[in-house]
Amino acid sequence: MSNPVQHSLSAPALKAAAAVSEDRLWQSLEAMAAIGGLGNGGVTRQALTPEDIAARALLIGWARQLGLEVSTDEAANLFLRRSGQEPQAPPVVAGSHMDSQPAGGRFDGIYGVLAAFEAMQALDDAGVATRRPIDVVAWTNEEGGRFERSCTGSSVWAGQSPLAAFLDDIGSDGIRFADALAETLAATPDLPRRPAQWPACAYVEPHIEQGPVLERQGIDIAAVTGIQGVRWMRVEVEGVAGHAGTTPAAHRRDALQAAVRAITWLNGLMEDPKDLTRFTVGRVVVEPNSPNTIPQKVTFTIDFRHPDTAELKRRGSAIERVVTEAVKPCTARIVTTSEMNPTPFDGPVPALIEDAAAALGLRATRLASGAFHDALYAARVCPAGMLFIPCRNGVSHSPDEYSTPQQCAAGARVLAATVVELANRT
Amino acid sequence: MSNPVQHSLSAPALKAAAAVSEDRLWQSLEAMAAIGGLGNGGVTRQALTPEDIAARALLIGWARQLGLEVSTDEAANLFLRRSGQEPQAPPVVAGSHMDSQPAGGRFDGIYGVLAAFEAMQALDDAGVATRRPIDVVAWTNEEGGRFERSCTGSSVWAGQSPLAAFLDDIGSDGIRFADALAETLAATPDLPRRPAQWPACAYVEPHIEQGPVLERQGIDIAAVTGIQGVRWMRVEVEGVAGHAGTTPAAHRRDALQAAVRAITWLNGLMEDPKDLTRFTVGRVVVEPNSPNTIPQKVTFTIDFRHPDTAELKRRGSAIERVVTEAVKPCTARIVTTSEMNPTPFDGPVPALIEDAAAALGLRATRLASGAFHDALYAARVCPAGMLFIPCRNGVSHSPDEYSTPQQCAAGARVLAATVVELANRT
Repeated sequence: MSNPVQHSLSAPALKAAAAVSEDRLWQSLEAMAAIGGLGNGGVTRQALTPEDIAARALLIGWARQLGLEVSTDEAANLFLRRSGQEPQAPPVVAGSHMDSQPAGGRFDGIYGVLAAFEAMQALDDAGVATRRPIDVVAWTNEEGGRFERSCTGSSVWAGQSPLAAFLDDIGSDGIRFADALAETLAATPDLPRRPAQWPACAYVEPHIEQGPVLERQGIDIAAVTGIQGVRWMRVEVEGVAGHAGTTPAAHRRDALQAAVRAITWLNGLMEDPKDLTRFTVGRVVVEPNSPNTIPQKVTFTIDFRHPDTAELKRRGSAIERVVTEAVKPCTARIVTTSEMNPTPFDGPVPALIEDAAAALGLRATRLASGAFHDALYAARVCPAGMLFIPCRNGVSHSPDEYSTPQQCAAGARVLAATVVELANRT
Repeated sequence: MSNPVQHSLSAPALKAAAAVSEDRLWQSLEAMAAIGGLGNGGVTRQALTPEDIAARALLIGWARQLGLEVSTDEAANLFLRRSGQEPQAPPVVAGSHMDSQPAGGRFDGIYGVLAAFEAMQALDDAGVATRRPIDVVAWTNEEGGRFERSCTGSSVWAGQSPLAAFLDDIGSDGIRFADALAETLAATPDLPRRPAQWPACAYVEPHIEQGPVLERQGIDIAAVTGIQGVRWMRVEVEGVAGHAGTTPAAHRRDALQAAVRAITWLNGLMEDPKDLTRFTVGRVVVEPNSPNTIPQKVTFTIDFRHPDTAELKRRGSAIERVVTEAVKPCTARIVTTSEMNPTPFDGPVPALIEDAAAALGLRATRLASGAFHDALYAARVCPAGMLFIPCRNGVSHSPDEYSTPQQCAAGARVLAATVVELANRT
């Protein structure tokens, strides 16, 4: 099925991919899932907790067995370096995060770290040397489940936020970020500390899709083209409370009915035959929320995402007009709570992932990521990209998260080939 | 403007109506509003509280000054009897309740009691004697604000529920109904106790409209034709949670979008050019209610009322089908939480109220009551009816509740004429 010549994949890349061990990768996923295992298939391994520290210790042990050079930085990001023929050249960085949601699954994040580590083992087994070094990375606090702001490690590494900005954050358990960070760093006193920022030649992040597209279309690999842009808004609809039994329809200013109209009209605005638009009303709060009182106020959230900046702007800026018109005779106040333009993965990484998948006989497609990832920040430092593998029913952030051993191995093979190409070609 | 001959109002009825004092009635409303006054125009005088006991004491004092015979019963309903030429004949009963919502207004309930008391004063001033006795009544716990079940006094009097069924109810302040009742009865140890049930010849209840119709149409009096029937339901829509950023629209089973469709389709079912239908979704609860998670479950309430039993049945029984269809591909479970058929005010009372209003030169209309009232239970014992006066902006259960002195007096005049006719004619 593979056609290495047509897709210009080098012999070392193909050798590395072929050396990936499905069993070994699955066993490492199982071993990590035992740390903070919930007994229902799920995992709690939140950032900078004892479970996170234990997972780091396990990974560091494996890395040393393999002869990788382990280091950390002020944000407790963990790097496992496989040296290259030009040890001073900016490395290829590959990985993801190890922290989980409070009741998360055994794949989100950790899969990317372990797939990258498996790739390093495969390179060794295949006897593949690379020109550039390769760093396996495990970023700190991607999830934002314990400490609310997410992607802490990658955004500090990318120079997007100074570490100091996070230090006073208080976790859901009442512990300061600074204290949890200090405890984590103190657990590995022997690790060399790298500076916060350093040049990288490319970044590749393997991850489960967290959506249903690949599984439903029977596709093995997505070459991720970028991270969608986002507009988050809060809409506050003001009506007039009244007695449900006595107020005729013609005299009502029912905030719930107004919100229902607004959401219906927004569905129209967001209609998209290509189904690239993501529009969600996830939170609705009604006041006074009594069965026999006409609602006086309804607050609802808008989560609108699109991979294309122009579409994000065009529809996003129409929201206020549509809502204001739809809620009449009620009134609405619209507050933008978050706004981020799409981050395209420019550069060679997405195409290389597609080529690698094709060369390995895997079905691949291009997909924009609906969720945020550490790659969002890495892309500000160097050419970046992600590869997605399918996950069952598109479920993540849940103990039900699942990808098969075959799916996990396929992603690791594509990654192994991709990092070899990046480390040798660029 | 009046035309007594055409409307067959007797001379005593007209004399009694003419003797109603706008000032005196307003002063009695003000005196009552001082008990439990909130300082913002509102009143807290919940059932069987010290404020309720103080209001009862004030009314009893006034009644004794007027020579009325005061009595109570096991439910602490209060009766002020003006005797008739045939003292043993079943009396005409007129009044309402004295208890208020926790932060209520100065008209809901108490207006009906004081309008009836003013009518008694007017009969005295006009020297009008009646064949039947007339009982002014103040029912216990109509609001259900402190003890959840409403219309306690009138339903016990009407033999609809034994008093024992209420005794163990716990108030919002943690006090047992039985204890609060005992305290209230102990405050008037000298009052004779009537049996719980006794024959009445008719019941008339004056009340503020608690809706905007009279005010908006410039009408003085509504002859209430009955109490609307009610269907209360709880709808539980089940969908599938998912990531707001990654799940394409085509793959979603979004419980909130399903609920929005269900409410929109129900609006269609409930459409009513006559605007007699009351349809309200007052309560909505979304789970998990997170801005970036597709809602998994939405629970909403339906409050559907109609004065006509056939319409109530026809549309009520269509709700399940409409919702089940609208929520697809989600599923819905519909639970009926309360169901009560309309209570028409059969008998002579509504027509007499209309006649009286016309004879007094007042603009009158017929209206179904959207809210429950003590008359709902009284109608099971004897011919019953209500008269509504306008209230500002239709507002009630609020410190903003307001009717003008003129509006209050007009209602008392119609009541005085109506009770005289009922006491003499029937």
